[in-house]
Amino acid sequence: MGWTSKDNDERRRHRVVIVGGGFGGVRAAKALRRLPVDVTLIDRNNHHLFQPLLYQVATGMLSPGQIAPAMRSLFRGQDNVRVLMGDVHGFDLEQRVVQVAGQHELEVPYDTLIVAAGATHSYFGHDEWAPDAPGMKTLDDANRVRSRILLAFEQAEQAQTPEERAALLTFVVVGAGPTGVELAGQIAILARKILKKEHRSFDPREARVVLLDAAPSVLPPFPEKLRRHAEKDLRKLGVDVELGAMAVGIDADGIDVRDEAGERRVPSRTVLWAAGVQASPLAAMLAEASGTSTDRAGRLLVRHDLTLPVHPEVFAIGDMVARPGVPGVAQAAIQEGRHVGKVIAARIGEQPEPPAFRYKDKGTMATIGRTHAVANVFGMKLTGLLAFYIWGFVHIAYLVGWGNRFEAVARWMWTIVARNRRERLISQTSLDSSARAAPAPERVRVHA
Amino acid sequence: MGWTSKDNDERRRHRVVIVGGGFGGVRAAKALRRLPVDVTLIDRNNHHLFQPLLYQVATGMLSPGQIAPAMRSLFRGQDNVRVLMGDVHGFDLEQRVVQVAGQHELEVPYDTLIVAAGATHSYFGHDEWAPDAPGMKTLDDANRVRSRILLAFEQAEQAQTPEERAALLTFVVVGAGPTGVELAGQIAILARKILKKEHRSFDPREARVVLLDAAPSVLPPFPEKLRRHAEKDLRKLGVDVELGAMAVGIDADGIDVRDEAGERRVPSRTVLWAAGVQASPLAAMLAEASGTSTDRAGRLLVRHDLTLPVHPEVFAIGDMVARPGVPGVAQAAIQEGRHVGKVIAARIGEQPEPPAFRYKDKGTMATIGRTHAVANVFGMKLTGLLAFYIWGFVHIAYLVGWGNRFEAVARWMWTIVARNRRERLISQTSLDSSARAAPAPERVRVHA
Repeated sequence: MGWTSKDNDERRRHRVVIVGGGFGGVRAAKALRRLPVDVTLIDRNNHHLFQPLLYQVATGMLSPGQIAPAMRSLFRGQDNVRVLMGDVHGFDLEQRVVQVAGQHELEVPYDTLIVAAGATHSYFGHDEWAPDAPGMKTLDDANRVRSRILLAFEQAEQAQTPEERAALLTFVVVGAGPTGVELAGQIAILARKILKKEHRSFDPREARVVLLDAAPSVLPPFPEKLRRHAEKDLRKLGVDVELGAMAVGIDADGIDVRDEAGERRVPSRTVLWAAGVQASPLAAMLAEASGTSTDRAGRLLVRHDLTLPVHPEVFAIGDMVARPGVPGVAQAAIQEGRHVGKVIAARIGEQPEPPAFRYKDKGTMATIGRTHAVANVFGMKLTGLLAFYIWGFVHIAYLVGWGNRFEAVARWMWTIVARNRRERLISQTSLDSSARAAPAPERVRVHA
Repeated sequence: MGWTSKDNDERRRHRVVIVGGGFGGVRAAKALRRLPVDVTLIDRNNHHLFQPLLYQVATGMLSPGQIAPAMRSLFRGQDNVRVLMGDVHGFDLEQRVVQVAGQHELEVPYDTLIVAAGATHSYFGHDEWAPDAPGMKTLDDANRVRSRILLAFEQAEQAQTPEERAALLTFVVVGAGPTGVELAGQIAILARKILKKEHRSFDPREARVVLLDAAPSVLPPFPEKLRRHAEKDLRKLGVDVELGAMAVGIDADGIDVRDEAGERRVPSRTVLWAAGVQASPLAAMLAEASGTSTDRAGRLLVRHDLTLPVHPEVFAIGDMVARPGVPGVAQAAIQEGRHVGKVIAARIGEQPEPPAFRYKDKGTMATIGRTHAVANVFGMKLTGLLAFYIWGFVHIAYLVGWGNRFEAVARWMWTIVARNRRERLISQTSLDSSARAAPAPERVRVHA
């Protein structure tokens, strides 16, 4: 069964192309499992990433594989899905083809298209900050962040002046959303608990962790009680929470911060970016192709049924899409993916029309440090250890595969007991890497 | 206690500098734990690598952290050891200082020096093969090899001609020593068992794994019975074992092989190098500085007591040293590291003089595929499942830390049951990476 063979089939099956193998894309593909359709799932990476735990890879707790199963392995038992690794760089909505740069330049035709390409970080127009303030959206990013954090401690061991040491031991996290809060908390734990007995020329507990945000509180989407609690927990861990404070300049030696009191310089060799998010550039591409538009974060404006204007055969879901009242979280993408699967089933006559999509808020939560969390779930505002257990339970439940669940729990327990982290590799290739190389395009028509 | 503070101490303690945190260096440092000495352990990486399991990282079984604990964490409880991350690039044997490029250009003085810098791979004068035939000595190497192997399968899914697909599905391993045998076996398992149900445009079992060696048999140092058995096991797994066959050219599209029958071309997009080994360049540097010489593999010729001629205060151990009758294996480095620790103890009057160093051969073994191995241990030549259990037991015993032991065994069991591998990440930064950047030197004198 060649990749190009199906077109010769007299009774050609309905072709669904899914762009993006994140929460939305994978759930959509799974939702199509019993339907007589041919699904092609395209992603630039070979793995499905469980992003909510990415910060644990960046701080040495979990290994990349534990939060990122190979995409193909998710569809071993689902014969109607083909996985294709490549970069989507264009759509022809009239001809109904997706342009993909993979091993070759491919044109993949569809009858129904689902675009679920997610979001990336945004430097608010300051892309020049990127090399000195790495963000965290991919596993390569997380490996780079981990290498940077651990390298700073190694370099501090060799510092020649107190100023140099202080700059090496100052970690600034920009952005106090869930990722920033969790990252800052884990760096504090790393310095105060894990590395405590491992350095000889300084006490790692001297390390300063700064969490900056222009907003007046941490975790803006959470209820006020939880925001205040999270801030208190962070301060207890020794994190300097600086609110109403904006990054106005970042270079290799530090960050310029502007707040009420004016502008000041924070010398730091490790600035990490957890602030802005913008939709995948595919959102703008689709907007242009279909005559709709995007919002300030580059998110595509879709119709209520998640389709494009004039193109009911094209769905867009997840973080790349703006829908009033629906937050940019994994749950939303998952629910949308499932919904689109049902709509497709109805269209090809296999199932009744589903009710209009409605987002069910299942709550939000964030961990702080080792055994604390804040959770806004089941209509309750929970904090401390109980919130941490619920956080753990929910994340384990959504992690793919029993093996990964088992290993993640074992590592969390071990980490608390041994006060160590398993994955403390500083990767030279991570540190050296800059932008990824673009594959050489070579035009070949598939499914011609 | 600053890194530079000790020199002001009136009763300065004996200073031991260890270059290299592999098996030899770490064991030497551990052997000095109860002595009144100050140990500085210098390594270019921040982790201690358990090299015998590196091939399992390269084939997606284990995570980097599971075979590479952070160097510092090994010495948490040993206050007399300082770990320093940096590249050693020179020795001044007269002034007794080691030149290190770390965060700064450092000069680290010693009273006793132990150099245990190991070996790297050698392309036998064909360094131009390196980009197209990556070797495997570091974790970054293993990540690159894994990314290359998995990418070839992804690209094969998109191949446009049978020839292209065949080249993408041909994996050539050059060198049939333990690393080459284990790597070839694991690639075969990957294709035949793990990926079996994951591709749609070809059957992964079509993949061809070629194991090449110029020698007339696999595993040259093993007894003949085991060599024959290993070869048979490899063929059963579907590996093409080609002996008496020499690589004469390697490029991005394949390898030129010369054997009895003449020269031929094997089209392959994934050639892996497990053939030559040469001593660290520090061996030649020490040879020049001390007036001794190196052998063909660049290994340093040392005296019977593992010291340099004219410099009894300088020891060299492990794979970078040539000693008749001692193989280049972990056991030799471990035993030498321990021995040097005892010699130092005797010299500073803390222990009686130890007997002259004698290598105790504890046997050799190699795994083949999932549950087979050959082992030459306890005077017995073992094969099959029993050898595999012994292999597993010994490797687990030598792995550092109960957590890693537990996780490795759990993964091996899970892999057999689930027919999957945990760590199947294709890393873009691994694929893009070339040579590592040299740190900018800046001269600062330490311990002046």
